[in-house]
Amino acid sequence: MMTSLLALFALLQAAPLAPASQPSDPVAADWRPIPDDELLVITLAGNRTVVVRLAARYAPAHVANIRALAQAHWWDAASVYRLQENWVAQWGDATEKKPLPPGITESPPAEFEIAGFDVAQRLGKADGYSAASGVSADGWPIATDGQAAWLTHCYGSVGVARDALPHTGSGAELFTPIGQSARRLDRNYTVVGRIVEGMKYLSGLPRSDAAMGMYATPGEATPIVSIRLASELPAAERPHFQYRATDNPRYAAYIRSRAEPALPTVATGVEVCDLPPAVRRAP
Amino acid sequence: MMTSLLALFALLQAAPLAPASQPSDPVAADWRPIPDDELLVITLAGNRTVVVRLAARYAPAHVANIRALAQAHWWDAASVYRLQENWVAQWGDATEKKPLPPGITESPPAEFEIAGFDVAQRLGKADGYSAASGVSADGWPIATDGQAAWLTHCYGSVGVARDALPHTGSGAELFTPIGQSARRLDRNYTVVGRIVEGMKYLSGLPRSDAAMGMYATPGEATPIVSIRLASELPAAERPHFQYRATDNPRYAAYIRSRAEPALPTVATGVEVCDLPPAVRRAP
Repeated sequence: MMTSLLALFALLQAAPLAPASQPSDPVAADWRPIPDDELLVITLAGNRTVVVRLAARYAPAHVANIRALAQAHWWDAASVYRLQENWVAQWGDATEKKPLPPGITESPPAEFEIAGFDVAQRLGKADGYSAASGVSADGWPIATDGQAAWLTHCYGSVGVARDALPHTGSGAELFTPIGQSARRLDRNYTVVGRIVEGMKYLSGLPRSDAAMGMYATPGEATPIVSIRLASELPAAERPHFQYRATDNPRYAAYIRSRAEPALPTVATGVEVCDLPPAVRRAP
Repeated sequence: MMTSLLALFALLQAAPLAPASQPSDPVAADWRPIPDDELLVITLAGNRTVVVRLAARYAPAHVANIRALAQAHWWDAASVYRLQENWVAQWGDATEKKPLPPGITESPPAEFEIAGFDVAQRLGKADGYSAASGVSADGWPIATDGQAAWLTHCYGSVGVARDALPHTGSGAELFTPIGQSARRLDRNYTVVGRIVEGMKYLSGLPRSDAAMGMYATPGEATPIVSIRLASELPAAERPHFQYRATDNPRYAAYIRSRAEPALPTVATGVEVCDLPPAVRRAP
């Protein structure tokens, strides 16, 4: 935790004490492209970019809404209007009165659980919330109780804000957990994505002490310049991302290396939100 | 998650649908004083105050150092010099070269585990890291594997930065987890306290992209005006805090209400870091 660790790392790099590659290192084929229309590019004032991968496979109705909202430029001049400490950052239309564009389903069906998910698929250990949890082959944090399966609320997951149940929200108002204890939102809020770049621009915003962390004055909010699907951006501006596939022995070795670290540290376990699925910009 | 929930709350308050008190409500006797010399008052530039409760009972050697450093005013003109996204905020002497005052044990014994802790004491469920975890009667998050017991690294816990093991750090450099996955530090770093007020002033600071989140330039760091034990402050400036004791049926009812919430939400479990032990300013 101290800078002298940097010196230690330098020393380790200088001395050939460790093999050049580890069984837990991904190979090129483990990096698979994320479709451009699964990437939502949020541009905040001050040229701060946040990129979300959309869970098109797991929350299709809400993702359809989000794509339509982005294509309608509905969020342009929206804002990040809520920052509740150890809880969430939330963005969209702070007035919650702006009419939705045509084609939006205002109350889509709840997508709390994943229909038809093969719960026998390889998943990790039990945690305090489910019988098993882990990262799906296509790079999503998923928990199961042996019957249902669902996307988990981890740091940086993107959920759909809503009124009281059974309303599930249209997707116009979105939030991300910025603290530690979001798993109790599992299966109560629809997860539609996860932030794969720029989370620091949300997590580092000033907190509000007003009710539910809503900024008390509009001036506190962070303006949103635009939200676009990457597929709608000009080719020159379009970011390309890849996810690390988990259906290979290298990923299994990575999990082991985290769950059973080398001495002299103590093996302390690992949970689904400890292992944010790896995503990178395409090289 | 939306403002109309506020309207709902107002409605519930207006209508006598719920009893005035709940079995999970603390009574006055459940609030017990935190000794003034267990409170560390950190004043950041801009009149931002962060208050730490020190784990005097569980990490006595490190807390003795921290008390001596505060009494020597050693941290005056120190800074918050490290902000690593989804990991830690760290403060102290950014140069790590400032001499320690007399009376400081530079390498105290590791206090990763709690000597003589009665592991049969009531603790909660298993999690991904331990056989059982919960909040001790005196208000600390604790995990046990049935043999050892230890303070957990939750959001807002205060740990002692160190070089490589077996060095455990003097306590001059401290950090707090600002993200989600700090439990792997359990039993590898000494926990000396937890932030009981003002966490937002650390969690909301700008992140650094430099190595290990160390700010690349001194101008990015947040100056520390002073760090004092509350017991050393003039009586008029001295804050008084209380913790909520857990050795009573009201706390057990609170845990149940969190682990088994009322319909229509789904019971999703609860873990030790989901239940920050309650602390308040003395009324």
